[in-house]
Amino acid sequence: MDVVLGVSNRHVHLCERDFKILFGEEAKLEVVKELVQPGEFASNCFVTIKTEKSEIQKVRVLGPLRSYTQVEVSLTDAFKLGVKPPVRDSGDLAGSEGVTLIGPNGSIELSEGCIIATRHIHITPEQMAQFGFEGMKSVNVELPGEKGGVLYNVQFKVSPNYAFEMHIDTDDANAHMVKTGDIARIIK
Amino acid sequence: MDVVLGVSNRHVHLCERDFKILFGEEAKLEVVKELVQPGEFASNCFVTIKTEKSEIQKVRVLGPLRSYTQVEVSLTDAFKLGVKPPVRDSGDLAGSEGVTLIGPNGSIELSEGCIIATRHIHITPEQMAQFGFEGMKSVNVELPGEKGGVLYNVQFKVSPNYAFEMHIDTDDANAHMVKTGDIARIIK
Repeated sequence: MDVVLGVSNRHVHLCERDFKILFGEEAKLEVVKELVQPGEFASNCFVTIKTEKSEIQKVRVLGPLRSYTQVEVSLTDAFKLGVKPPVRDSGDLAGSEGVTLIGPNGSIELSEGCIIATRHIHITPEQMAQFGFEGMKSVNVELPGEKGGVLYNVQFKVSPNYAFEMHIDTDDANAHMVKTGDIARIIK
Repeated sequence: MDVVLGVSNRHVHLCERDFKILFGEEAKLEVVKELVQPGEFASNCFVTIKTEKSEIQKVRVLGPLRSYTQVEVSLTDAFKLGVKPPVRDSGDLAGSEGVTLIGPNGSIELSEGCIIATRHIHITPEQMAQFGFEGMKSVNVELPGEKGGVLYNVQFKVSPNYAFEMHIDTDDANAHMVKTGDIARIIK
């Protein structure tokens, strides 16, 4: 079973309140590029992630706004920032790392919200049944190429609205020298 | 079959001529820390890797001096530098990437020498026989942990002088959240 890869660079999701603090009351989150997942988009807005140790500039805000603010980084980013974010699913932020976000209009100190995203596959309930994955929470996925290999613990994220696509971070992608649009193989 | 991991951060090997250009005629490559492989050491000398696009400072020179100059980076480093180094074994540098090295005494423009090192296992001929690897050029290796997985194409480097140890770069290590001293499992 083949699946298309999407590589997620470090990015930020914002709640409405935090968006207004960072970008101003009148700011609008505009669509620069639609992503594969329906409704999701790369926006025109960027923030700086700042910690005691260092900072990473020009981190893109993905839209639309959410009910929570979340900062997704790779372990390589985490070493640079001097933080230890846990590996978590989106929205599972309790006890995760704190960082400061700086926008053109203001900044916010997050006591938690910074994570390394779990490797995951977006899939519909119909596809879970059709492909024989019902009852499974995760799979292993084989990556092609001269630095290929297998990624363990790839979680299913199931929703009727999802496009079938696998998301990995830049560390997974660079280790195995794969990129967005490459094809991986799900191992049952 | 378990093997201990050694994670190689970006580093440089130098020939004597290039060392003298970068650090001066009178400079000595001093041992700061012995590495696991007998005779190899982290030195007190650092260079900057420079390209048209950007640079990476404080890149350590490993000793002793060799018959060739070689720059080993990760793909993450390569993206930052804007170069496309091939995946190669040590010393197999024909047609590899060019970069500029800058030391305290001078600089050298390498027309080739920058590579992404092949994943490899240092092993003696006796161990190759003892562990049942005779005639094999490479194996797959399983990494533990919540971002665990399997690395393909891990090459055997065989010499009577080697200590049994597996070397991966920081991309492989960070993707799978493993570090120097962790234990991996060779899959035959």
